[in-house]
Amino acid sequence: MSMRLRLSHCGLSAGKRARLHRLLYKHGLGNGTALFLPYDQGLEHGPRDFFADPIAGDPRYIVKLALEGGFNGIAIQVGLAEKFYWDYAGEVPLILKLNGKTDIPSDERALSPVHASVEDAVRLGADAVGYTLYVGSPAQEADFAQFRTVRQDAQRLGMPLIVWAYPRGAAIEQKGGKDSFYAVHYAARVASELGADMVKVNFPHPEKHTAVPDAYTGDFTSQQAIEAVVRAANRTMLLVSGGSRSGDDAMLQKAYESMSAGATGLIFGRNVWQRDHDESLRFVARLRDVLAKYPTE
Amino acid sequence: MSMRLRLSHCGLSAGKRARLHRLLYKHGLGNGTALFLPYDQGLEHGPRDFFADPIAGDPRYIVKLALEGGFNGIAIQVGLAEKFYWDYAGEVPLILKLNGKTDIPSDERALSPVHASVEDAVRLGADAVGYTLYVGSPAQEADFAQFRTVRQDAQRLGMPLIVWAYPRGAAIEQKGGKDSFYAVHYAARVASELGADMVKVNFPHPEKHTAVPDAYTGDFTSQQAIEAVVRAANRTMLLVSGGSRSGDDAMLQKAYESMSAGATGLIFGRNVWQRDHDESLRFVARLRDVLAKYPTE
Amino acid sequence: MSMRLRLSHCGLSAGKRARLHRLLYKHGLGNGTALFLPYDQGLEHGPRDFFADPIAGDPRYIVKLALEGGFNGIAIQVGLAEKFYWDYAGEVPLILKLNGKTDIPSDERALSPVHASVEDAVRLGADAVGYTLYVGSPAQEADFAQFRTVRQDAQRLGMPLIVWAYPRGAAIEQKGGKDSFYAVHYAARVASELGADMVKVNFPHPEKHTAVPDAYTGDFTSQQAIEAVVRAANRTMLLVSGGSRSGDDAMLQKAYESMSAGATGLIFGRNVWQRDHDESLRFVARLRDVLAKYPTE
Amino acid sequence: MSMRLRLSHCGLSAGKRARLHRLLYKHGLGNGTALFLPYDQGLEHGPRDFFADPIAGDPRYIVKLALEGGFNGIAIQVGLAEKFYWDYAGEVPLILKLNGKTDIPSDERALSPVHASVEDAVRLGADAVGYTLYVGSPAQEADFAQFRTVRQDAQRLGMPLIVWAYPRGAAIEQKGGKDSFYAVHYAARVASELGADMVKVNFPHPEKHTAVPDAYTGDFTSQQAIEAVVRAANRTMLLVSGGSRSGDDAMLQKAYESMSAGATGLIFGRNVWQRDHDESLRFVARLRDVLAKYPTE
Amino acid sequence: MSMRLRLSHCGLSAGKRARLHRLLYKHGLGNGTALFLPYDQGLEHGPRDFFADPIAGDPRYIVKLALEGGFNGIAIQVGLAEKFYWDYAGEVPLILKLNGKTDIPSDERALSPVHASVEDAVRLGADAVGYTLYVGSPAQEADFAQFRTVRQDAQRLGMPLIVWAYPRGAAIEQKGGKDSFYAVHYAARVASELGADMVKVNFPHPEKHTAVPDAYTGDFTSQQAIEAVVRAANRTMLLVSGGSRSGDDAMLQKAYESMSAGATGLIFGRNVWQRDHDESLRFVARLRDVLAKYPTE
Repeated sequence: MSMRLRLSHCGLSAGKRARLHRLLYKHGLGNGTALFLPYDQGLEHGPRDFFADPIAGDPRYIVKLALEGGFNGIAIQVGLAEKFYWDYAGEVPLILKLNGKTDIPSDERALSPVHASVEDAVRLGADAVGYTLYVGSPAQEADFAQFRTVRQDAQRLGMPLIVWAYPRGAAIEQKGGKDSFYAVHYAARVASELGADMVKVNFPHPEKHTAVPDAYTGDFTSQQAIEAVVRAANRTMLLVSGGSRSGDDAMLQKAYESMSAGATGLIFGRNVWQRDHDESLRFVARLRDVLAKYPTE
Repeated sequence: MSMRLRLSHCGLSAGKRARLHRLLYKHGLGNGTALFLPYDQGLEHGPRDFFADPIAGDPRYIVKLALEGGFNGIAIQVGLAEKFYWDYAGEVPLILKLNGKTDIPSDERALSPVHASVEDAVRLGADAVGYTLYVGSPAQEADFAQFRTVRQDAQRLGMPLIVWAYPRGAAIEQKGGKDSFYAVHYAARVASELGADMVKVNFPHPEKHTAVPDAYTGDFTSQQAIEAVVRAANRTMLLVSGGSRSGDDAMLQKAYESMSAGATGLIFGRNVWQRDHDESLRFVARLRDVLAKYPTE
Repeated sequence: MSMRLRLSHCGLSAGKRARLHRLLYKHGLGNGTALFLPYDQGLEHGPRDFFADPIAGDPRYIVKLALEGGFNGIAIQVGLAEKFYWDYAGEVPLILKLNGKTDIPSDERALSPVHASVEDAVRLGADAVGYTLYVGSPAQEADFAQFRTVRQDAQRLGMPLIVWAYPRGAAIEQKGGKDSFYAVHYAARVASELGADMVKVNFPHPEKHTAVPDAYTGDFTSQQAIEAVVRAANRTMLLVSGGSRSGDDAMLQKAYESMSAGATGLIFGRNVWQRDHDESLRFVARLRDVLAKYPTE
Repeated sequence: MSMRLRLSHCGLSAGKRARLHRLLYKHGLGNGTALFLPYDQGLEHGPRDFFADPIAGDPRYIVKLALEGGFNGIAIQVGLAEKFYWDYAGEVPLILKLNGKTDIPSDERALSPVHASVEDAVRLGADAVGYTLYVGSPAQEADFAQFRTVRQDAQRLGMPLIVWAYPRGAAIEQKGGKDSFYAVHYAARVASELGADMVKVNFPHPEKHTAVPDAYTGDFTSQQAIEAVVRAANRTMLLVSGGSRSGDDAMLQKAYESMSAGATGLIFGRNVWQRDHDESLRFVARLRDVLAKYPTE
Repeated sequence: MSMRLRLSHCGLSAGKRARLHRLLYKHGLGNGTALFLPYDQGLEHGPRDFFADPIAGDPRYIVKLALEGGFNGIAIQVGLAEKFYWDYAGEVPLILKLNGKTDIPSDERALSPVHASVEDAVRLGADAVGYTLYVGSPAQEADFAQFRTVRQDAQRLGMPLIVWAYPRGAAIEQKGGKDSFYAVHYAARVASELGADMVKVNFPHPEKHTAVPDAYTGDFTSQQAIEAVVRAANRTMLLVSGGSRSGDDAMLQKAYESMSAGATGLIFGRNVWQRDHDESLRFVARLRDVLAKYPTE
């Protein structure tokens, strides 16, 4: 088991540290771990994600779920933040997602355009901002350019910056796809090099190694892979994403391996709210049990 | 042996001169030569560069290595600077690399997008900024445009500007490739013409002359080639890059020839840290022996 | 013989007039003619242009040559201006070239990206700025857009604007090439229409008329052609470029015909410095003899 | 003896810390103490301060004296920095004084107008900026307003901010004068409260207690007074000013008491250069002996 | 005789150096000395200054006089520059005076408001700007504030900055008046400390020592006084002002003493044009004879 990062080691300004302290020590389990609820699927995939459990299409239901489940924060786009957060402002931390896109055009040159600012996040009382970086996309020039502005604004205003580091685009598809150990490993490092305070990655799949660089074709266990990903992120706190809905035991296994590897926490959306209310809370309770075993310090 | 450039001959403003004096005379051997440690491979190639020696993936290890080895400075991206430099601030000079890219998409129209500013460098206490210029790339319009902003900001703020002058792109591949004497020679000159204070080049290979312009097909020795490259850079101080890991004797031979030709110093990364700690320091000691033989003045 | 343009006829602002007066009446022969030394070949063609006479690769040698030869000004890029002009500031006028490119990528969609500003020129004490306009290039949208900014800045700051009007690109190649009377004639007019104060053109070749428009297929002498080009430029002063190295008598013949046609002067680089020092000065003396015969007024 | 402040305890950004590390550990004794040479008397009092030793009126002599004496830095106004620092850039650290005034008008409503910016300091390669705050002046509205801009710029650019905290103005004169324990004690605290990284104060005189508030009328030794002043400054490093020329033993006594109280260093001008060259260096050697006894850590 | 300042010793940027080289070596005697013609009296005193010689009220007459007399430059306000300089642009250098005032209100709190910008000067083709600083005025806060902007713009644009350093205001009147050695000495130093490239002062009167500080009450000759003033200005070139019309021999004596003391030149207005045309030129010829005896280098 690796050491979990402590806030005092990360070179954080007072403002970033104050907000991260709130996120990690004043909410959720309060032990330095994080369980975040992302709810940007209505933009990223469209409302078809809510067909199975239509109540999940109601943002008010989700904000209340975050409160009931004892989440450390909820990540939403600016429109939902304006309309739903005021009513629960301060009860559960807000992570304002600053960019996003529909999945209607092709992802070959994927780029997630910025549609809100760090100042919007300050105005709304958010404790962090989120930015999706499509690592490996041929559109990286535009991506780095808009990320730079977000990073500088976040630095100036003392706002923690969480990067959704997603391998994506034609070149990634030719080199093993977006879930390979190679792709996730590289993505975590890129987020760290470019200035993320936290990085959200998908769980790496070392067994997907067709066409990846030679270094990644060995027999790695998933535990070894997630440990390498945490190391690649160095002083950038790591969040493991749930991704699309899968079996609970597989998800919990991922959670254990991630926390054991030194991740700071989990960011699970569809695996939480794509079921009925009470089942959601029962699954969240099991995730909290994992986090309770891995306090920071 | 050629004369090495002196700071007082280069038309430098007080701020650029103060910072270059610190880099060249207050650190390293203090004799006007430079030994820099570049550490941007985590972004440029991904963390696979650290597989053989995983400790090298930890930026803190590298910053300490720069201190122990008596380097004149360390070149890193803004994210690592934010997270690791504060703890060693002022102990070893910082060169903030302002642009960079992953190697996932094709290099045919290579462009290294800017993701940090000269003002970031000032804020972090850096003594120089680095910019990668892909000489010969079809994307030179975008490259020159973003370089212009960097150069003007560096001029305004008295910040030395080091250009990684890398021949790259489809047209270079058709004219002999990125390591030919022709390509390196041209790249050094372009950096000087566009306003670099220092230029980092790969060691030129005069024997690679398939498809290069006629002038370069003669029988040049590598010593003649590096001398021509130093002259092409004129009042831009020249750094020779180590490139990918090779044999020590070959590297030291390059170092001797470069310094003898009038280069200001060396910028060696993988050849330094892609070995274990004590071996790294032993190799650095041998590089310092070379530099000690070629003081400025 | 045509009348040479006088400054008082050109609708110039006080600042442009002051600087042009200095260029034309306080340097060189001081008789309203101009002999400029362009030295941007290190960027445009690379250092191979200096292979035959390596000393010519040293910008300091060239600045001194401009002084010794009694040139009216020297045209260089910003990097060389920063590093070499300070030592001779004010002794020979500086023309700052604001754009330029390498010749590595294809010229099919030629565009010369701006890498310095009119304010850089003011800061460095220049008396004019130079801009390369690739007349006929498919990239003319980008070209005109960046030219517009340069022209407006030059107007605001009273800085004379010299346009290197070069026919270039795939379409020009299909219509007779870059040196035809047709192409040069058109280029001179375009510079005048878009706002150049001075225009630099290649000497027109009326005998190259394959595939040019019908109007240019007649039997024009070179004297008739250059006269037409001067007229096309109207109140834009015209400079005739030396181009690549050729025989001295041919060059002097061009010079006579140009000045006799009403050109303001000559801008000769490689024909001057691609020989040894004393031969350079002897050739310059012969060019000055031509200019002395064609004073303005 | 009190503990001296360490850089790692002060909440400093990387840039401020890098520059302070250079000032305190890479120059002077390199032991965390400071000996600064202030040279703003030509503006503050006029050139009559140089009558006794005219050579001291030559800024070049003073910069060289700072080098010979092993000072940690020299504090000058922008005009002298432009004209004299370039020649010694980086050899001795520069503290750019951002405000100043003549002593011709009355000091009743003393205000020191800003005539240079933090960006000027960055441009010139300075390692700190200096600002004179006239504590207690009726002009404090204007003073605090311009200080706020300086502090914010210094924060944004990572530039250490040294405050000359001088009690001054009609109200101070009515309450015991500018050198009283009361006035100096209050001034040190004000600098700390408003955001100074370092504060320069005059040595407090507890025996001057006519008309001061009751709390200061007791029998305090000078050692007790300077200890209280250091405590009042809390995490703002304290520099003790030499003031006008006095006896060497008295000055050394002040130096011992100050360092023993936990001050970071001394800033002595007239007591250094208002004597001949060799005597200056002998006196500096005695000051260095004091500082050597009080290393930080 | 003192050494005269050389441009290469002053830390000048290329642009400032180019323009000063033109002023000092391409006009007037071309020997590094200066003879400037100031013509701002129409604003400063009103047209009554032209009553005796009405033709002197015509700016065109004055510009031609500057040309005929071989002056190094003419100093005028923006309105006259717009209306009269275009016709002579480049023939005689322009010094654009950026501030000025009428003498109608009291001088107790003298301040000379800025009414033109450094960019206006660039636009008009000027080779320097002039700024009146009222040293010692109670309005020094506003004065320093506007001077700062002018200095920074001049630095940014490479424009030499000449300061009319005039002791003025109620406090100066109480301390010996504006022409005392004390006042002139202090004024020269203030201009240097605040960032002037050249300073214009009145000739000091050591015999006016009522109420001046003690240091100035000794028996100084005028030669000793002007030497001290030149030293106080250090690397700021010094111009001695003619002031109001006086006897020719007295003026020439001032000129000799000033140049012998190391001044760079003279700036004489009323003493030149408050006489008829031919007498003006005869007097100018005598001034040129003085300057010819004191070449720089």
